[in-house]
Amino acid sequence: MFEQPIPTLRRDGEVVHVLDQTLLPFRTETVALRTLAEAAHAIRSMQVRGAPLIGATAAFGVALALADEGADDATLAHALATLGATRPTAVNLHWALERMRLALQPLPPPARVEAAWAEAEAIRADDTATCDAIGRHGVRLIREIAARRPGPVRLMTHCNAGWLATCGAGTALAPVYAAQAEGIAVEVLVSETRPRNQGLLTAWELRAAGVPHVLIADNAAGLLLMRHEVDLVITGADRIAANGDTANKVGTYLKALAARVAEVPFHIAAPHSTLDFACADGAAIPIEDRGADEVLHVRGEAADGATAELALAPAGTRAANPAFDLTPAALITGIVTERGIARPGELARLYPEQAR
Amino acid sequence: MFEQPIPTLRRDGEVVHVLDQTLLPFRTETVALRTLAEAAHAIRSMQVRGAPLIGATAAFGVALALADEGADDATLAHALATLGATRPTAVNLHWALERMRLALQPLPPPARVEAAWAEAEAIRADDTATCDAIGRHGVRLIREIAARRPGPVRLMTHCNAGWLATCGAGTALAPVYAAQAEGIAVEVLVSETRPRNQGLLTAWELRAAGVPHVLIADNAAGLLLMRHEVDLVITGADRIAANGDTANKVGTYLKALAARVAEVPFHIAAPHSTLDFACADGAAIPIEDRGADEVLHVRGEAADGATAELALAPAGTRAANPAFDLTPAALITGIVTERGIARPGELARLYPEQAR
Repeated sequence: MFEQPIPTLRRDGEVVHVLDQTLLPFRTETVALRTLAEAAHAIRSMQVRGAPLIGATAAFGVALALADEGADDATLAHALATLGATRPTAVNLHWALERMRLALQPLPPPARVEAAWAEAEAIRADDTATCDAIGRHGVRLIREIAARRPGPVRLMTHCNAGWLATCGAGTALAPVYAAQAEGIAVEVLVSETRPRNQGLLTAWELRAAGVPHVLIADNAAGLLLMRHEVDLVITGADRIAANGDTANKVGTYLKALAARVAEVPFHIAAPHSTLDFACADGAAIPIEDRGADEVLHVRGEAADGATAELALAPAGTRAANPAFDLTPAALITGIVTERGIARPGELARLYPEQAR
Repeated sequence: MFEQPIPTLRRDGEVVHVLDQTLLPFRTETVALRTLAEAAHAIRSMQVRGAPLIGATAAFGVALALADEGADDATLAHALATLGATRPTAVNLHWALERMRLALQPLPPPARVEAAWAEAEAIRADDTATCDAIGRHGVRLIREIAARRPGPVRLMTHCNAGWLATCGAGTALAPVYAAQAEGIAVEVLVSETRPRNQGLLTAWELRAAGVPHVLIADNAAGLLLMRHEVDLVITGADRIAANGDTANKVGTYLKALAARVAEVPFHIAAPHSTLDFACADGAAIPIEDRGADEVLHVRGEAADGATAELALAPAGTRAANPAFDLTPAALITGIVTERGIARPGELARLYPEQAR
């Protein structure tokens, strides 16, 4: 079982401490969440990010709201609505909030606060166990490649779907950490993931966990796949439709296309809470458009060690910023879940109770 | 005929002034080249960039060398070799140097200096005329789309293949400027082009020329193409093999893949000097690997207006930086040259004297 080098989310009484991911990889600081507004802000501003961690943070946000504002029906409804509106694409958020609603609504208000903390803790514990299970199933893919050829297994990932994105070992990176625990040599090709550079979070967390890695521009993925310098692509997901079409961080689709042409396996790793059987296919998944500022500005570390932000383009430059894209099921080799690896079309077999 | 808002290359007696593109879009400064070493540095450090402008700068670099060091055979050979080693992928460089060699070697040394300046000027004038011809042929593609549907024609480009990359209107952007001159409404989707962000040069030059544009992360190209929010993709090229396989700035291949799937036309615009019939196909084109620093650092403008550089990743992070990639001919709808638009396999028909 993987232990996070630094906890991404930790409860201390009626305060929830989260690692502030907007400051990484330059500064390591936690931010204390005491109210619904603070929890919603942490999600919206991406202080917490990664679909599973967003879900867990939203669950703790409900507990914070009830502890802070009272546990009547109106407060509960307001908390659920406020948190539900923070990010449109990640379905785990809505899954976690629905789980909180089902656990809390039937209870008399005086019982709700303790129940909310308990349910949020249960969601967190589930996520940790889920990550371990994804790692256990996914490591088979890596083990097979390692058995076939000498040298480290070269995995390509996108964005950050590691321990920073969850309450445990991560989703896409859980198999990497499981391989490391087994002594299999791996090297992770980390794409920068513009515009928010979450690949730098991946580089940071792989360094913290002692896993060899190489940073690349997102643009380099095509050539490296064409040259067969990658054995396996594995990314996380923000939402998976019933047919296996997957929404993930913008740029995932381009990697999937290039992997398909190069006949390199392309896998998605995600827990059941990412599956949305209510979406028949990708066309039904909402794609979040984020602000132009994310494209027009960049954060980094100055020579004096201070974190600084620079403008990349002249003021007034227009920018479009769709934050996710859709990878059609036909480009996905397999989906690694906590119940095993499914072909995209077979999700309903693994999760019959969700598919109904 | 397009006139450059600021000349990219200008001779003044025995000094060549080039616009320093490493400072754009933040500062507009020219750098004076007086020696072979300064010309070679300008190319290597990408103060000048863009295949046609690199070729012209190399030609003027030969003239500088002869004017500065003498015009004997050894100096000429040294100048050709030094300039030829600056960038491995762009073939225009070698084309321009070969043209200089053929013009100068037969002459007695005393006649070589004036002839070198004259031949370099001729290469520059050719490039200007070539850009205009590419614009004249390429604008047909835009005109056809404009005739078919209302609203601006939405073009996607990559890197910078505009007036900054040439001595004239550019290659990929020459048709855009020609459309603008005809009064056709266009909007250019400009991909950032990590790691060196040459898309910001494109945004800067489009602004200088008054063409509407929208900056996007390279990663967003897939979704925008999938959603049919792009009418036409057009990029430049650094080298085109005999079969039409094309080397261009890394990331071009991913756009070509996504354009093909979305059935959006994907064109390359390039002059004859980019064609390399000695390369049978893309596998024979050398791909330049550049330093990790380009991936690990970024340049931008601080709040006080100063140009600054930031580290994106912790010191010691490894990075890979292939600067170009290969787009197979099968993904290319057409190649816009100064002699017309050819299918990739038909280049030999347009340029029989080069194909032999």
